[in-house]
Amino acid sequence: MSTKSKEFPLNFTETTGPITTSAKPWAVDKKAMRLFLSMMKNPPVAVELWDGDRIRTCRQQPDITIKVKNRQALWGLILNPEFKLGEAYSMGDLDVEGDMVKLVEIGSTHLPEFLDNRSPLGKALNLLSRKARRNTLAGSRHHIHHHYDLSNEFYELWLDRDHMQYTCAYFESLDQTIEQAQCAKLHHVCRKLRLKPGDEVIEAGCGWGGLGLFMAKEYGAKVKAYNISHEQIKYAQEKAKREGFQDRVEYVEDDYRNASGTCDVFVSVGMLEHVGRKNYKVLGGVIDRCLREDGRGFIHTIGRNRPRPMNRWIEKRIFPGAYPPTLKEMMDIFEPYSFSVLDVENLRLHYAKTLEHWLQRYEASLDTVRQMFDENFVRAWRLYLSGSIAAFRVGDLQLFQVLFQRPLDNNVPWTREHLYPGQ
Amino acid sequence: MSTKSKEFPLNFTETTGPITTSAKPWAVDKKAMRLFLSMMKNPPVAVELWDGDRIRTCRQQPDITIKVKNRQALWGLILNPEFKLGEAYSMGDLDVEGDMVKLVEIGSTHLPEFLDNRSPLGKALNLLSRKARRNTLAGSRHHIHHHYDLSNEFYELWLDRDHMQYTCAYFESLDQTIEQAQCAKLHHVCRKLRLKPGDEVIEAGCGWGGLGLFMAKEYGAKVKAYNISHEQIKYAQEKAKREGFQDRVEYVEDDYRNASGTCDVFVSVGMLEHVGRKNYKVLGGVIDRCLREDGRGFIHTIGRNRPRPMNRWIEKRIFPGAYPPTLKEMMDIFEPYSFSVLDVENLRLHYAKTLEHWLQRYEASLDTVRQMFDENFVRAWRLYLSGSIAAFRVGDLQLFQVLFQRPLDNNVPWTREHLYPGQ
Repeated sequence: MSTKSKEFPLNFTETTGPITTSAKPWAVDKKAMRLFLSMMKNPPVAVELWDGDRIRTCRQQPDITIKVKNRQALWGLILNPEFKLGEAYSMGDLDVEGDMVKLVEIGSTHLPEFLDNRSPLGKALNLLSRKARRNTLAGSRHHIHHHYDLSNEFYELWLDRDHMQYTCAYFESLDQTIEQAQCAKLHHVCRKLRLKPGDEVIEAGCGWGGLGLFMAKEYGAKVKAYNISHEQIKYAQEKAKREGFQDRVEYVEDDYRNASGTCDVFVSVGMLEHVGRKNYKVLGGVIDRCLREDGRGFIHTIGRNRPRPMNRWIEKRIFPGAYPPTLKEMMDIFEPYSFSVLDVENLRLHYAKTLEHWLQRYEASLDTVRQMFDENFVRAWRLYLSGSIAAFRVGDLQLFQVLFQRPLDNNVPWTREHLYPGQ
Repeated sequence: MSTKSKEFPLNFTETTGPITTSAKPWAVDKKAMRLFLSMMKNPPVAVELWDGDRIRTCRQQPDITIKVKNRQALWGLILNPEFKLGEAYSMGDLDVEGDMVKLVEIGSTHLPEFLDNRSPLGKALNLLSRKARRNTLAGSRHHIHHHYDLSNEFYELWLDRDHMQYTCAYFESLDQTIEQAQCAKLHHVCRKLRLKPGDEVIEAGCGWGGLGLFMAKEYGAKVKAYNISHEQIKYAQEKAKREGFQDRVEYVEDDYRNASGTCDVFVSVGMLEHVGRKNYKVLGGVIDRCLREDGRGFIHTIGRNRPRPMNRWIEKRIFPGAYPPTLKEMMDIFEPYSFSVLDVENLRLHYAKTLEHWLQRYEASLDTVRQMFDENFVRAWRLYLSGSIAAFRVGDLQLFQVLFQRPLDNNVPWTREHLYPGQ
């Protein structure tokens, strides 16, 4: 690993270690934190200040302790918790003892409305803490590079070993391993699409190529898969060649908007989050251009119950340009072209479970991660994975799988029973 | 049957028999019809004029002959086919020899865009042929009375005998009878809702009470069901009493907006079509008011792939105030209250199949229908049922089943396998 890649990922421009201070907390610091906790409905959380003093407003013994190292972190947490929790934690200005997932769950469900993303104050904070990120062809390339080109070795540490799926798995039962559940997800997707030998597939946003290779190997499909992440495409191409499927799966380093040719199946798993609302009609147009009259289409994406911007910290530090749509917003892909939505399934809790597996492996691989990246990165990713578990558990995020066809196509399975074979 | 009920249903104010004419068709009549047929992409349809002359532009032998009895019907068909086909056919100014379903399918798929509902001309014709119909409390009562209070005996002639379901059935296999498929539908709905003994249900728009009674009898639920159709409520109450379930199912003659109390399950099958877009947020508010924190909600409705007004003739003669929403429009029920959509299933072809069963029974009961209503009615309902089959077959109409819960409720089945027991 070069020093460059150690520094790149999170673009921290501030100091990367905690600001240490010898100044004692003032009475107003403590009063403000006490007020903040009571507005958060007195959660089972204690806040330990840099002089060792502990503040809590709950009656029971706190499950979680937030250790705040300086005044800046304290006031950031109070005034802009959605953003500053992440900033302060990843820079070491704040430590968490106890269950970090639970802490974010509390934050998500107890945050007073005036601090919410959609409140006037929240919107103002949004504007302050983020530049507009446009998913133009160049913008998308930059945003995707930021996250997915971190390093293939890094993702290999904690994703499933067989298919490198960086999207929600499908747990047919709770005791499945992440490898089993990702394999089940790939089958679930292929069954929804009624994939059969010889089918020509266009895949938009193919990650490390797992789905495309699976479709070719397990279902005899012929796949053309697009992705703008250079690292991922290289990885996918090498793997397909190694396994002797380079003639059945073509990995193209290009934007989905440049997809060419026609297909029996259009599939996109985990790309829509990066497409941006303004481009939904464009995406629909790409599908309309490519999908044959009897073709099947499928989109798998993180979503929302109601519109709201991405968490500011995640958007700035982890996923620039990302936006999880509501079902209503997603319909802008389908309605202009009269695509007929056949099936929507919400797999929210499967994503929480998937992330639990990822976080467990991530924590088990910390020594290796520390050789790759600095401590800011290690902490930021712990918070990102934990916070995502929380977001799916408390219904802040959803996972939608949407199956669709042409409006005149009557070749539709009579029931969805075929999705549950041998169960 | 009183004379009044014979005349009421369709409110025809024009003559109820064909206008007979001795005037020969002009050359311009024939030219215009020929042009119309060629704009319709030369379908396998012949038009026989009132002097016996036959016009066709297709090469093959026509499957269908439209017999036009006078000039008024001819020009109505050419200039405003979506509305005037129904008007002329039901009044006897036009006859159809051959498959009426196929004729409407051709009309739906080949109509030139400038005559379409969404075109400027189409929108102007919309305005001309329809008064604004508002689903206020009083307006809804009037609209529902128009259709559902026709006569219980009439609907008994052709709906399934066991549960009187005037909504889409669910054919587990194609050889099921309509009785079996409606029973399967009721189970499918109850399974989606994970209905269990003791569950308290609020049903909005209960028809003749079939679902409510089924939920009480088969699942041990306690149901409060609302409907503003006096005839239907009376029928439902009497049946529940006859079967000894009057303590388990309460049928209330009132608007869904007046639903009171709280429930474990909120269900509405086939009512949303009559709610009107402007009231979706109101409906969502009613559900939000009634549904407990761990409750399940379900809406079953006719829908569209993209927004367009109801067919003008159906809206005027059959279903005043009706509007089938797109999924995007439906989200106005759920988003404002952060309901989480868990499952959407599109059963479009099941409704085509359901209507085929209904039409077959309707035709077999014509003698009895003629004792109840006049010939205009008989013809109008034949066209309505045939046209509806066509609309579902060509994807002009969809059938959406939407399951939803509260955002924080994690009691969600891990897969949808439980919907397919023993298959």
